[in-house]
Formats: sequence, C-alpha cells, structure tokens
Amino acid sequence: MILPIYQRKELNLDKYKSLLFRKSKSEEKEAYQTAERIIQEVESEGIEAVRKYSLEFDGVFPEPLILSVEDEICKKAENSLSKELKEAFARAAENIHRFHLLQKESFQPKETQIAESLLGFYYVPVESAGIYVPGGLASYPSSVLMGVIPAKIAGVSKCIVISPPSSHNSAILYCARLAGADFVLQAGGVQGIAAAALGLAGSPCSLIVGPGNRYVTAAKSLLASQAKIRMDLPAGPSEVAVIADQGARAEFIAADLLSQAEHGKDSSCILLTDSLDLAQKTAIEIEKGIQSRPSRRAIKTESIQNHSFALVFEDIEEAFSFSNLYAPEHLELCVSEPKKALAKITNAGSVFLGHYAPVALGDYYSGTNHILPTGGSARFYSGLGVDSFLKRITYQYPSQKSLKDALPSILLMSEHEGFDQEHGHSVSIRNDSSV
Amino acid sequence: MILPIYQRKELNLDKYKSLLFRKSKSEEKEAYQTAERIIQEVESEGIEAVRKYSLEFDGVFPEPLILSVEDEICKKAENSLSKELKEAFARAAENIHRFHLLQKESFQPKETQIAESLLGFYYVPVESAGIYVPGGLASYPSSVLMGVIPAKIAGVSKCIVISPPSSHNSAILYCARLAGADFVLQAGGVQGIAAAALGLAGSPCSLIVGPGNRYVTAAKSLLASQAKIRMDLPAGPSEVAVIADQGARAEFIAADLLSQAEHGKDSSCILLTDSLDLAQKTAIEIEKGIQSRPSRRAIKTESIQNHSFALVFEDIEEAFSFSNLYAPEHLELCVSEPKKALAKITNAGSVFLGHYAPVALGDYYSGTNHILPTGGSARFYSGLGVDSFLKRITYQYPSQKSLKDALPSILLMSEHEGFDQEHGHSVSIRNDSSV
Repeated sequence: MILPIYQRKELNLDKYKSLLFRKSKSEEKEAYQTAERIIQEVESEGIEAVRKYSLEFDGVFPEPLILSVEDEICKKAENSLSKELKEAFARAAENIHRFHLLQKESFQPKETQIAESLLGFYYVPVESAGIYVPGGLASYPSSVLMGVIPAKIAGVSKCIVISPPSSHNSAILYCARLAGADFVLQAGGVQGIAAAALGLAGSPCSLIVGPGNRYVTAAKSLLASQAKIRMDLPAGPSEVAVIADQGARAEFIAADLLSQAEHGKDSSCILLTDSLDLAQKTAIEIEKGIQSRPSRRAIKTESIQNHSFALVFEDIEEAFSFSNLYAPEHLELCVSEPKKALAKITNAGSVFLGHYAPVALGDYYSGTNHILPTGGSARFYSGLGVDSFLKRITYQYPSQKSLKDALPSILLMSEHEGFDQEHGHSVSIRNDSSV
Repeated sequence: MILPIYQRKELNLDKYKSLLFRKSKSEEKEAYQTAERIIQEVESEGIEAVRKYSLEFDGVFPEPLILSVEDEICKKAENSLSKELKEAFARAAENIHRFHLLQKESFQPKETQIAESLLGFYYVPVESAGIYVPGGLASYPSSVLMGVIPAKIAGVSKCIVISPPSSHNSAILYCARLAGADFVLQAGGVQGIAAAALGLAGSPCSLIVGPGNRYVTAAKSLLASQAKIRMDLPAGPSEVAVIADQGARAEFIAADLLSQAEHGKDSSCILLTDSLDLAQKTAIEIEKGIQSRPSRRAIKTESIQNHSFALVFEDIEEAFSFSNLYAPEHLELCVSEPKKALAKITNAGSVFLGHYAPVALGDYYSGTNHILPTGGSARFYSGLGVDSFLKRITYQYPSQKSLKDALPSILLMSEHEGFDQEHGHSVSIRNDSSV
C-alpha cells in the first residue's frame, strides 16, 4: 500500500504534530537570489533583459511583449479551439461570474454620524492588475478565468494576463478575451512579473495575483516587500484534505486524492476519518487507480507515498480539529450532514460538501475560485476574490462643533505621545477662528 | 521661505513627475539583512536571543516576556494616568469602536444557487493577531486602540500587543486593557516580531499589523514572504497632502503640514492648490509656526525643506489628478463642496473633508484608523480595518445532478490542461455510481 495509514491512538504527540507540516520545502534562498538578480536586471536594462531571460527559460520571445485582446492574434485564437471546449469555458466563466458578483455586493460604501462628525468609507478598485498564469509544458486557461473575472467585477480598468509564451496559448488568449482582460503580457517567470510591475509594456501593475513556481512567488514577494506591488498570497504545492465518515465511498475519495496527486509530486492528499476500514479501502483504490490510469504515474506515486497519508481517529470530531490546524487549501467533507459540519471549519481555502463534490468541480466549473492559500496559510489568508482587487478609503467630515468637543481629548493624547505642539495646535487654531 | 513652491506651468514633465516620488529611501538591504539574521537567531535560540537583542537595543528585558492583561501590572497601570487622559482614551476608543463596527456589517455570510449547486462563503477571524506598537523615546497608546479594536470586532480571540519595553508604558498597558487585548508581549523590533510570529510566548501570531521602523517592516515582510505570517502593509514615513482652493485658510493648512512634519524628518507634507497666493501665505505661516513653536524644530524644518512642497496648478482639477497619482496616506480636501470632491479621490489612505478636519482629529479621536498606507502604496493598499483580520472561506454543496451536468465541460477543460485522467475520473466515477 503506498498510502501511509496512521492511527491517532498509536502516534505519540510529536509524530502527530509532525503530520501538520508539509514536507515540501523549496530552496527559498536560491529562488530569492535568482529573483532579485533578474528583477535588478529588468530594472536597469528594461525589455532587453526580459528578452534575454525569455529566450533562456522559454526559448522564445514573441513581439510585441504585450498584446491587446483586440489584436487580431487574440481574436483569431478561438479558431483553433473546438466549439465544445469554448462552450465549456463559457459556462465555467458564467458560473464564476455569478459567484463573484455575490461577493461584490458586500463592498458597498457606508456612512455614519459619530460624535457629530460624518464618517464613512468606500471601495475603489486598483487601477491595473496583473494575473499571472503559469505556462511551460501545459497551459492553464482556467486560471485566466479565475483571476480576470473577479478583477473585472471589482472594476479594475487595466487587467493584464501575464503568461510565459507557449505553444499552447490559444486557450489562454481565448479565455483572456472571454473573461474581459485588456492585455496579455507574453513573458513569464521573474522577468514577466518584473516587466508587469515596472510597466515596461503599458501601465505598471500595482497588484499581481495568481499561482506560479517558486521563482514567481519569490519575485512577487520581493516586489511586495519593497512596496512596489501588492501580491495575493505565496503559492505552494496544491493539496486536499478529505474528512470522511464510514458512510463515504472509498472509490470517490481515492479518485479525489489521486486527482490532487496528479498536480505535482509534492502535492499533499490526506484522508481524515474515524473508519480504519475506509482508510484501508481507500488505500486499495488508490493502488488500483495508479495501475489502471497510468498517466503521470511517477508524479502520482511520489505525491501519495511521500506527501500524503490517511489518519484514523477514534472520534470524527478529532478530524475536524486536525483539519483546522492543518488549514488545507481544499477540504472535502464526505460526512453525513456536511452543512452542519461546515460550521466547525475555521481554516480552509475552499470547502466541498457532500459526496458529489470533487475538487475538480470547483477547480474548473462551479464558480468558486481555485486560486487558494496552500501550505497551511489558510490560517491567515483568503483565496482570491473580488476584495483582492479593492481598496477601502475612509473619510470624515467633521463640523466645527465636533472638532471643538474633541479638542481637550486630542490635546491630552497628543501631548502624551510627544506631539504636543503641532498636533494640538492644528486643532486649537480651528477652535479659535473660522474660515 | 523653507517650503518650496512650484508652479505646474513652469515645470517640465520630468520635474513634475519627480514630485510624485517620495525622497526618503531607507537602506532596505541593510534592514533586511539585519532582520534576517535576528529572526534566524530567535528561531534557533528562542527566548535567549530575544533577551540578548532587547538588552542590546532597549537596554532592558522585562520578565515575563508576555503579560496577560489580567496581570496585576496591567490592572495597576491606570493608577499612574490622570483621570482626564483615561477619559480621553475612553472616548476615542468608543468612536473607533463605532466606526469599525460599521465595517463589520459588510462581512456577512452569503449563499446562492448556481447551476443547481449551492455555493457560498463566510468570514472567519484569524485566531491570533499581533499588533505592533512602536516605542523607544515615546510611546503610542493611540496605536494600541487603532490595532486592537478592529481585531476584537473581527473576533480575533488572541490579540497580542507587541511593544518594546519602555519607561512610558502605563498608557500602553491601560489602552491594551481598554481596547480588549489579551496579552502584551514586552519586546520590540525584529526580536519582538519574531517572538510573536514563532509563538515563543503563547500562540504564534498568524497576522502581524501595525507601524514600525524599517527593521520592523523588514521583519514582517520577511516572515510574510516565507508564508509564516500575513502582514498588513509596509509602513513608511507619515505624510499628508492638502488640496485647497482660495477659500481655504493658510493658517489652518500650515498647522496641518507642520503637524505632519512633527512626526519625523522624512515626513512629506504637500499642498496642492490653484492659488499661488494661498501657497505663499501658507509658506509664511509655516515659517512663523516653526519660530513660535520651537519643539522638534530641527525635525520639522528638515521635513518641510527637503520632503515637502506646495504645487500650484492653473486648475484645481489638476490637483486632484496629481493627488490620485501621489496616493497620499492622509488627504485633506480644503475646498468648497468637499463631499462632491471626494468622489474624485481614487487613491488615498484616509480623507479629511472641509476646513475643520485636521489629520490630528482622525489620528487620535474621530474613529477612523490611523494605520494607513504610505509612500504611494495607497494605490494598492487599504488602511487597517476589520477586514484586515478576517479570512473568507468559500464552499459548495452540489447535487449529483449538477455534477452530472458539469461532467462534459470538466472533462474537456481538464483534458486541455493535461489533467485528463484523475480530474476527469473524480467526476465521472460519481456520474456512474452513488453513495
């Protein structure tokens, strides 16, 4: 059996706790140093540096660096796609659009009267956002939809898809148009991120979101730490946790774990259950699946063997506690009364309820976003949403009377903090005279 | 006149654009290297390293490292404060509480039906948050209120004030209790941030917010880039922009610019106006103010001389355009019909409307938050708010029917992306059989 099965009662606390930590540790330092070097080169040499690294890493540097979605090449991209595939993207886009519209409703301006001052806030989209879409061997048009649609719902006026030039990019270009993107920047990796952030082709992107390899994440993190951009969240290997009771079907769970394992050899796929029987059956089904569906076999095997496990508890409640500490990117609740169980979930990227909710449904189609926090960072990050593209601006419109009332308090507090002269004076001068 | 006055019509485009950039550039590299070194030491040596650096930088290492607000020392802190000061803090806390409650209302759970699946989202607070409050020569109890109150409204269960040990900390301890904090971690700088993030005293803080010097910002950024914490925003020197028409009063504006200059020698304080006369009068009033209010004279002079200016436009509309590019932390609209003018503001931390709205009012008292984006990062960041402490979790509860309908689309899309076997299989197996 390649899926390790642990029983909680047989584990000491150290071993139990060690299961909370993802094994995959990228060589961060090297990625940072590389990202720093390439960003500096792009800063000093501009497009020439982008060309150099695109040729080095992607073997091609298409010109122009940036395409408008109204360019012929974008308009014609759909010609190479089947009608059925285009319809599938369109249906997915429609669902994603509807779900994210629901988020938009929350971000209404509000105003109130406090201590005779008018106070309020309102939301404004960032002006230009970059949506990174990884490329390389495969292309991920679904990530174009997931990034661009919430950005456009938020009202971002310049939405730039950043993606490495690739031989498979018809679907990327098609989905960019479908989702309402404005531009496609034909460079990936650190050089693509740097070109977008610095505005080498069009407006500088003040926000860059989307998944990517560790160099992409390092580039985003570096630029964010220099306050040059805001980033979404540091992306890591994809992962799923399944909480299942004995009413769940091992074939379904095995399929979902393998579906996650298919993403990469460091994907974590874990089953949390109160049924040893279910864990064992799931392990057998995984074995069968790897035999009968040979594609990406080495990747799936390494993911299941080295980054995955089943953990059997005496009581299903412990599975929920473990899951909240683990904070999975994707969480499936294959239990009776999953809606009731949802109320216990405090840390997860996106949750899939019931027996007919494979992660693939949300990754592609249903409407929820698939750009989600990994590696336990769901303890403190949300997945991508409309709010990722918004800023809140607060304001106040006080009367002279309300300022007068505030004066003694402000004088005391500002004096206490050592700003006794000017802070206090700026209030008191308005107390003594009017416009 | 120490305030430089520029007229737009006399500037070439390069000079004009250069005014958008803040001059203050900290030695980021050195701060990062120092932060990295100290974090590593705290990681490997724990509290001993915190002790070492606290003694080195603050001259004192009070034990225990962490206080509960229920400890006697916290309860007794109020004894050394005047009744009037305590009342001032209490009134400010009440206003801040009311304003941030208004934000909370937006974060309600929502649910909808899309393609026969139930989809929804809900918000959960982070479990533990650290609020950094700078110390050193002065102490900033107002920042305790600004950080802790929105955290508690969001529902954060462990709220930890992180502040360097200081001789002035009665007000910090008092405000921590007043605002509802749970703990006070008595260490500052990189070592304080690292101790909080690693959970050396109590729960690890998964989110750390609040202003600080460049070492504190570097420490937060480094830990965030390693996905160990989420941070709020990179803090920089405080700043104000005032948009004023000829109806504004030079004395008021001069007071507000000086009030910002009082914060530090690299604070930027700018006046954007269509009146050369107002600019000149403001420059004169600043001169007078520096003469008549001598406290922090060197700091104020350097801020006004080297980081500040008045910029005179032909048309006040240009002032709004400039301000949106500049993206000031604080923005005052000293114009007729300020509420109407607010609609033009797309990039700013917090906006102060009318002639009776000095920044000091919002910094201390009115209810808006004073932890705001600086250095132009208001183009992509919000100030601190209730949402800073929340995560959004999405979910879906599909029926077998809705999954069946989605199957052909998911098969096409997953096949296109190279996840043809397992992703598709995880859906089709549920099409063929039931639980």
